[in-house]
Amino acid sequence: MKPALSVGIAGLGTVGAGVVRLLRDNATPIAARAGRSIEVVAVSARDRKRDRGVALEGVRWHDDPVALVADAAVDVVVELIGGAEGAAYDVVMAALAAGKPVVTANKALIATRGSAIAAFPNASLRFEAAVAGGIPVIKTLREGLAADRIASVSGIFNGTCNYILSRMRAEKLDFATVLADAQARGYAEADPSFDIDGVDTAHKLAILAAIAFGRQVDFASVHVEGIRGVNALDIAFAEELGYRIKLLGIARATAAGIETRVHPAMVPLTSPLAQVDGVNNAVVIQGDPVGQIVLQGRGAGAGPTASAVVADLIDLARNRAAPLLGVETGSLQACASVPMAVHQGAYFLRLMVADQPGVIADVTAVLRDHSISLESMLQHGRSPGDAVAVVLVTHVTHEAAMAAALARLAALAAVREPPALIRIETA
Amino acid sequence: MKPALSVGIAGLGTVGAGVVRLLRDNATPIAARAGRSIEVVAVSARDRKRDRGVALEGVRWHDDPVALVADAAVDVVVELIGGAEGAAYDVVMAALAAGKPVVTANKALIATRGSAIAAFPNASLRFEAAVAGGIPVIKTLREGLAADRIASVSGIFNGTCNYILSRMRAEKLDFATVLADAQARGYAEADPSFDIDGVDTAHKLAILAAIAFGRQVDFASVHVEGIRGVNALDIAFAEELGYRIKLLGIARATAAGIETRVHPAMVPLTSPLAQVDGVNNAVVIQGDPVGQIVLQGRGAGAGPTASAVVADLIDLARNRAAPLLGVETGSLQACASVPMAVHQGAYFLRLMVADQPGVIADVTAVLRDHSISLESMLQHGRSPGDAVAVVLVTHVTHEAAMAAALARLAALAAVREPPALIRIETA
Repeated sequence: MKPALSVGIAGLGTVGAGVVRLLRDNATPIAARAGRSIEVVAVSARDRKRDRGVALEGVRWHDDPVALVADAAVDVVVELIGGAEGAAYDVVMAALAAGKPVVTANKALIATRGSAIAAFPNASLRFEAAVAGGIPVIKTLREGLAADRIASVSGIFNGTCNYILSRMRAEKLDFATVLADAQARGYAEADPSFDIDGVDTAHKLAILAAIAFGRQVDFASVHVEGIRGVNALDIAFAEELGYRIKLLGIARATAAGIETRVHPAMVPLTSPLAQVDGVNNAVVIQGDPVGQIVLQGRGAGAGPTASAVVADLIDLARNRAAPLLGVETGSLQACASVPMAVHQGAYFLRLMVADQPGVIADVTAVLRDHSISLESMLQHGRSPGDAVAVVLVTHVTHEAAMAAALARLAALAAVREPPALIRIETA
Repeated sequence: MKPALSVGIAGLGTVGAGVVRLLRDNATPIAARAGRSIEVVAVSARDRKRDRGVALEGVRWHDDPVALVADAAVDVVVELIGGAEGAAYDVVMAALAAGKPVVTANKALIATRGSAIAAFPNASLRFEAAVAGGIPVIKTLREGLAADRIASVSGIFNGTCNYILSRMRAEKLDFATVLADAQARGYAEADPSFDIDGVDTAHKLAILAAIAFGRQVDFASVHVEGIRGVNALDIAFAEELGYRIKLLGIARATAAGIETRVHPAMVPLTSPLAQVDGVNNAVVIQGDPVGQIVLQGRGAGAGPTASAVVADLIDLARNRAAPLLGVETGSLQACASVPMAVHQGAYFLRLMVADQPGVIADVTAVLRDHSISLESMLQHGRSPGDAVAVVLVTHVTHEAAMAAALARLAALAAVREPPALIRIETA
C-alpha cells in the first residue's frame, strides 16, 4: 500500500469536525477504497479550547490557516472555513500557489472567485461538497454523464428554503412564522438572507451550470429571487391547481442561450421535485442521450458534507484527476447567460381585486394587449366591496410581455395589492 | 491534446450502434471532457450487410471478435455482444489477457464470471452500463460514496418487470395479458424468463452488492423470485393498504450478515421507489454518514446504455482508474450472503378460504403457533360456500417461521388455493 495521504484541515466547525470523525470512524473502508490511508496531520481553527467532540492529540495545530498550508507534512489542504473572502480565500490561494491540492465545501468561493482560481489552470481543486451536500452531483455531471449534451440542470439546492416551504404547506402557516421557528430550531441562520433570498442556491446553480455547459462560472448573470414573497394563499392555490411551490435553481439551454435563474416555482405533483420535502435536496438533469436523471439526498449537515469531502480526498489518493470544470480551460465555451427578459414560460398570477363588475374584463384586456393567453382562471367566494383573489394561469409566454402586463395590472384602480407572480416549471 | 483513444467495438446491436452514433454526435463535448478524441477504429459483428443506421466507412471490420481484440490499432475493447458465455466471454478474456482495457454492458458476465476475471487482478474492466442503464450508480457507489459504510442498496433494476407491474396496476390487467402485449410492443423478449423470473435483476444486484460491501461478486447466493406469481388481486389489495408492488433487488447488511434478495415487494407510497413507473430504474442507497441517496433514470435502451459506455471510455481516456470492485483484491471482505431463511421482515399474506365459520380461527392459530403477530387483517364481501380472499399483514417476523406457517396454512382444508405471500419493504 502507498504511504498515507496527509491532510490539513482549515476550519473546525461542524463540517470540519465531521471530516475528522469520518476519517477515523470509517478508516478501514476508506483506506481500502483510497488504496492508502488518509490521515489528518494538521488543523487550523480560531479557538483551541472549544470542545468539538473529536480528539486532536498528535495533530499539529496552526493558529494561522495559511501557516497550515505551508506545513511540509500537509499533502492536501481541506478548506472548511467558508465565505468567498478572508481566511478561506487566503488559504485556498496559498494552497493553489504552493501547488497543493485543495478540497473545499465553499460554494461562495467557487461561484464568485473564478477569475482568481483561473490563474492556476493546473490547480487540483475539488468541491463536491459545495453543491447538494452528500449527493455526488458534481461527479455525476463531470464524469458519469460526461458523454452527454446537457439540456438542463435544475433542482432544490437549499435545505433551509425547502424546509420553510414544506412546513408552510403542511401546516398552513405563513412565511414569517415558519422562519422564526426555523431560526429557533437552528434550521435557519440568525441572518437568513443568504438562504432565503436565493443567494446560496444561485452559488450552487452557477457552479453546476459551468460544469453542465462547459463554461466559466458566471454567478453575476444568475437571475435571483428568494422566498420572502411566497405566502400561504399562493401555496393553497398551488395545491388546488395540482402544483407545489419550491425554490428552484434552473440552468437550461434554450434557443436564445443559456438561462440561469433562481426563483420560487410551481412544479406539478408528478414532477420528481414536487415530492422532495424538508431539508432534502434534489437535482434533475436532462441529457442527450441519457434522458432524465434524478438525484436526491440530504443537502447539508456534517455527515453528508463530510461524505463528499472525503470522497474528494479518496479521488486525490487514487490520482483520479479531472479539470476544475470538467474540461481544460481552453475548451471552455464562451456562452454567457441570457437575461431573464428573454425567458419563456407559463405563469401563475394572483391579483387581489375589488369585487365589482368589469374588473375581470379590465384584467384580461391587459393580458390580451400583451398577447398573453390564459390556460385557466380561478376565483373563490365573493365579498362585494372587499378585495378577492383572482388567479390566472397563462400559457407559455414571454417574460418581458409578462413584466409589462404586470406593471399595467398593478396600476389598475381595482387591483388592491401588488400582484403575486410565480413561474410554472413543467419540464 | 493527447492522441485519440482508439476503440474497437464487438457487437453492433442497438447498443453498439448507439455507441458509434454517440461518439460521433457528441464528438466535440466528449473530446473536451476526455481531454482527447475517442474514435471507433474497428468493429465486429456477425452480419456485415445489416443496416444499423450508422456509417462505418473507414472502420475496420472483423468477422471474428477475438481478432478485433488483437487488432494493433485498438486501444480499448468495448464488448456489447452480451451473455456470460460464447463470443462475449471470449472477447473479454482475450482483451484482459492482452492487457487491453475493456468496457462492457454485460451484467451476466460480470455477475457470473468473477473467478475468471479475478485471474487478471490488474485488469482495467469497466461496466457502468451493466447496471441501471444511464444512471451512474457504479461510479456513485465506488467513488461518490467511497467514504461511506453502505448499509443497503436496493432498487428497481429491470425495466421490463417494472413496465409490466406498472401497467397491471394502472389498467387493472392480469400478468399474462400485459406480458403478451409487452412482447408485441418489443418491451419484453420472446423468451421473457431472464427478465420476469428476476435473473437480470439478480445479476445487477450481485454486482452492486460486491461494490457496496467490498466483496467478491456472489451471484449464486442471491435469493431470486420473479413476478409471474403477482396477480391483479394482490395489486388491488396493495393499493388499498397504501403500497405498490415492485420487483426489487435488495442488498442489506443485517446483524446476521449480508442479505441479497430479489423478489416482488410491497413498498409504501411514501417510498421513493413507489413512484417509479414504466421502464425507469431507481436505486436507493443508505450510507453512513451520507444518509439516503436516491438515483433515478432510464434503465435500458440504446441512449442511456451508450451514455454509460462512453462515460467509461472518457474515464479511461483521462486515466481515472479504480479497482474492479472499488478496492484491491486483497482488501475484499470475505462476507458471504446469508440464506433467506434468516431474513426478518413484515409480510402480506393472501389466502383464498372457504367462506365458513371457524376458518379465521384456524388460520390465526397457525400464525400464533409460529409466533407471528398480525398488524392487520382484511376481508371483503361474503360468498357463502365459495372462496373469499382474506389478507393478513404481519409485524416483523422470521422468514423461516413464515415459511413453516405457510406450509401448514396451505394444507388447511378450508384454504382453496396456494397462499400468496409478498414481503413488505418499508426501509
